[in-house]
Amino acid sequence: MGKLLRINTKEKTFNFEEVPQDYEGLGGRALTSKMILDEVPPTCHPLGKANKLIFAPGILAGSPAADSGRLSAGAKSPLTGGIKESNAGGLVSQKLAKLGITALILEGKPENDDYSMIVINNDGVEILPVGDLAGKGNYEVMENLWAKYGKNTGVLSIGQAGEQCLKSASIQQADMSGKPGRAHGRGGLGAVMGAKKIKAIVVDDKGASRVEIKDKDAFKAANKRWVDMLRKHPVTGEGLPALGTAVLVNVINEAGTFPTKNFRTGRFEHAQDISGEKMAENIEARGGITTEPCHPGCVIKCSNVYHDKDGKYLTTGFEYETIWAFGAHTTIKELDDIAMLDRLCDDFGLDTIETGVTLGIAMEGGMIPWGDGKAAIDLLSKVGDGAPEGKIIGSGAAFTGEALGVDRVPVVKKQSMPAYDPRSCKGVGVTYATTPMGADHTAGYGVTANILGVGGTVDPHKKEGNVELSQGLQIATAAIDAAGLCLFVAFAVLDNEDGLPTIVAMINAQYGLSLTPDDFLELGKSILNNEKEFNKRAGFTKVDDKLPEMFDEKFPPHDTTWDFTLEDLAKTLDF
Amino acid sequence: MGKLLRINTKEKTFNFEEVPQDYEGLGGRALTSKMILDEVPPTCHPLGKANKLIFAPGILAGSPAADSGRLSAGAKSPLTGGIKESNAGGLVSQKLAKLGITALILEGKPENDDYSMIVINNDGVEILPVGDLAGKGNYEVMENLWAKYGKNTGVLSIGQAGEQCLKSASIQQADMSGKPGRAHGRGGLGAVMGAKKIKAIVVDDKGASRVEIKDKDAFKAANKRWVDMLRKHPVTGEGLPALGTAVLVNVINEAGTFPTKNFRTGRFEHAQDISGEKMAENIEARGGITTEPCHPGCVIKCSNVYHDKDGKYLTTGFEYETIWAFGAHTTIKELDDIAMLDRLCDDFGLDTIETGVTLGIAMEGGMIPWGDGKAAIDLLSKVGDGAPEGKIIGSGAAFTGEALGVDRVPVVKKQSMPAYDPRSCKGVGVTYATTPMGADHTAGYGVTANILGVGGTVDPHKKEGNVELSQGLQIATAAIDAAGLCLFVAFAVLDNEDGLPTIVAMINAQYGLSLTPDDFLELGKSILNNEKEFNKRAGFTKVDDKLPEMFDEKFPPHDTTWDFTLEDLAKTLDF
Repeated sequence: MGKLLRINTKEKTFNFEEVPQDYEGLGGRALTSKMILDEVPPTCHPLGKANKLIFAPGILAGSPAADSGRLSAGAKSPLTGGIKESNAGGLVSQKLAKLGITALILEGKPENDDYSMIVINNDGVEILPVGDLAGKGNYEVMENLWAKYGKNTGVLSIGQAGEQCLKSASIQQADMSGKPGRAHGRGGLGAVMGAKKIKAIVVDDKGASRVEIKDKDAFKAANKRWVDMLRKHPVTGEGLPALGTAVLVNVINEAGTFPTKNFRTGRFEHAQDISGEKMAENIEARGGITTEPCHPGCVIKCSNVYHDKDGKYLTTGFEYETIWAFGAHTTIKELDDIAMLDRLCDDFGLDTIETGVTLGIAMEGGMIPWGDGKAAIDLLSKVGDGAPEGKIIGSGAAFTGEALGVDRVPVVKKQSMPAYDPRSCKGVGVTYATTPMGADHTAGYGVTANILGVGGTVDPHKKEGNVELSQGLQIATAAIDAAGLCLFVAFAVLDNEDGLPTIVAMINAQYGLSLTPDDFLELGKSILNNEKEFNKRAGFTKVDDKLPEMFDEKFPPHDTTWDFTLEDLAKTLDF
Repeated sequence: MGKLLRINTKEKTFNFEEVPQDYEGLGGRALTSKMILDEVPPTCHPLGKANKLIFAPGILAGSPAADSGRLSAGAKSPLTGGIKESNAGGLVSQKLAKLGITALILEGKPENDDYSMIVINNDGVEILPVGDLAGKGNYEVMENLWAKYGKNTGVLSIGQAGEQCLKSASIQQADMSGKPGRAHGRGGLGAVMGAKKIKAIVVDDKGASRVEIKDKDAFKAANKRWVDMLRKHPVTGEGLPALGTAVLVNVINEAGTFPTKNFRTGRFEHAQDISGEKMAENIEARGGITTEPCHPGCVIKCSNVYHDKDGKYLTTGFEYETIWAFGAHTTIKELDDIAMLDRLCDDFGLDTIETGVTLGIAMEGGMIPWGDGKAAIDLLSKVGDGAPEGKIIGSGAAFTGEALGVDRVPVVKKQSMPAYDPRSCKGVGVTYATTPMGADHTAGYGVTANILGVGGTVDPHKKEGNVELSQGLQIATAAIDAAGLCLFVAFAVLDNEDGLPTIVAMINAQYGLSLTPDDFLELGKSILNNEKEFNKRAGFTKVDDKLPEMFDEKFPPHDTTWDFTLEDLAKTLDF
């Protein structure tokens, strides 16, 4: 059995604690959301001493299960004011699991401005001053920490955005090459870490024993089926490895639901210039990597390394939603400018979706011209030096809309919508509206049955079936997030009757349990119920599921509108 | 019977409309709040086309009743997201009443950025381009409009803050000398006017007939009692005329509930330097006016004109809450600096309470040093030229706290608390928490029985009796706001059994009615119920009545804390 590691950030002390009964058997999002509901006052200030920042490896973390290395981070969100779970790949999850740490909890708040870092290894825990790493970007921080603690050390860190407690601030994770290419991006969790004055967390599992597997043979058999399933599915076995998530640019643009110029139309005339195919072509010509895992044990390998036109490293983990946000949404068509914007976000520690949507709002408000990549880079750069423009841009789209008097801002619960228009991809629209997270495609990726023909077919332009689609996906996703599995396994799971049973078989083999697939889905429901309950106590009502008035506009090319009532939507998470 | 004047700001057209039955007999806050509930979608964007900006003279407006010249402005608030009524003195209310206009309603939203002005007179209505008045401050706008349309013309206008749609933007009214000394300050209504691209509204009643009084003798008799009552009360007859509202600086400081340095302590060591006595001394020495009415027919005359040390006009309508916000709250102790900050707010069109509290948050967040008046003036000046710092500061305290990562922000429903600490003046604290307006002392001024011994005595440090105190005051205040009377009449009304009957007698005499004082208080209740209902539909819950965690801190010198539960507070407006 693992332990909870609680850090008192005010006193700079720590405490290992047995996992209490209420939290037993939970991991990942199931654990972070349960702990936040139980331990964080729902009306507290997200940057105050009462909020907690919780990191939890998934249930399968540290095991050999393919794609089980996602780490959940949770807190009351400074962006939405509601509960937040944001998970990311990287090296930390598996190392925490091997060190026997079920959750790492940052509590309290220091009264002075000195930053600390937390070093966790097999010898114990140290809370150390960060010295001159304070004020530095994530690239420099991670380079320093790998130099000091060794390559392949797990690192979580915040950049200048988190230090300034900006609402779009992310927590970055060192990727396989020690770059800040992986992000707990959404919901401003970097600001919570910044408020607690923790600049970085270093996790080293050298000397730690392996995670115990109760029934090794059963585990091995199930994992083999699992790997085969992932490798054989066309999305996880071919599309994602070849072109990364950017494979979606042409697909979603073709489907006419690629939100362009702040959600005015569903096709971007320059989509080809920012497509996965174009990205792969550049990588091929300039060096870089098209196919890289975000954590050890990943068989999908949808990450990448992208070089500039001189063949010099530019950025990593360059994703579809990032390219869309900085690209079609702002009408910037130069992929290299978009890559630079991605790099700046990774370095300052900013959510790329939130920041890209925000730059579009800055264009809508006349702060910079539409489609001007260089102006966008200049503006975003100001986050790094704490300039007032940076404080606005780093605080997200809703905030920037308020600063500039713009009333056309595509947010739900103050979180920016990602790269699929809710009017012509209604399954994901229902998810945006109803997930306790604020607009988030990963909470219930209706693009599957709406566009990709995965897990059935539901018309993306009509209401019918999309509440049910989103409901099923939100439940399954919550459970997958609890397991610590990458969301992309869902493609294979949805198209494979043996998918869910195989995940459950791995959990059963690891822990000596006899759960059924239904038990696993019940876990998903209980997570969502905990999250809804927290938000309710924090003051959320069904009104918070409303999409902004801009979605009453007809959306070309399909001329769809958003036509769900709040009563329709209320059914989504009613179970 | 009057008419509704509806202006379509998109089409630049207008329409006079009979007052529909549902709105009959209503005026001031009763009418604005009822219309907003009935006509404005509660979840709409406050800056979008669905919001309406409504101006309504009170029920007694245009009559000779003393102190009946307050104009109500209402809309969905960009600051709080809830319903808002903000009333002010000036010349407009009585003139609209004489022109037979029961309410002026600005609807829709233009698609381009050209500003218009509305000119209303006995010949009709014109909607004209503003030419080069766009971008100008309220001082210049009003000077120009008086030059063009004549002295004593009623003017409502917005400055640069309203044009930028900033959340602290006010709508200023020309005072008796044509200066922007009167403000519909709270809740960002200037941003709604800015979104509708209306720079100014000019109201001229030349040639209009008098307001009809059904029973002239009865009216005259009641108004005589009314004037006597106001003149004989020590607050309305002596304190306010002599020193203006700034008489309260020493009183509230002495009571130990004068929030100092962002609500850390209840006494400011330099209170004497910013007191009403000091202000009167400066006015005496430099020229200026200590005793001036804010509208014709006022017998209290608590306004003033304040000159700089060279005897040159500096500002007007220099109020206690303004002096507190820019003074004790920020620890600025130079009254002339505070007067300059007041002037800048009037010119840019900003709520002085919100802006003063915001400057304290800017100090808390390290943007400028505590107590530095010159730095505060420099920072506030940036609102005028649209600089990013100005966009932050002009958006209020909650917003600035978010931009700077400050978690100690004294707001309720995102509106800044005024000049009385809720812990040591709990009657007003209950009002801050529960009024649908967001923290607002004028919604139920518990300072009366808590500190001033007016209308009874309730211990300001204990819970007992303060929910009831706030309830009674909120009901009476809503009714007074409907009548169009100045809130300060409440001092006399609370201490005089004949107060309420006299108000009702004037209404009855004017309209030939036979209302009772109970009917008048029922009107107050119905207003509050309408406002609560709007907020509920907009997504507010009891959680929105919570005071920030900073009020859990003990407050010197009385070491009080905020000890009301949400259940205690829920009783306040439960009728």
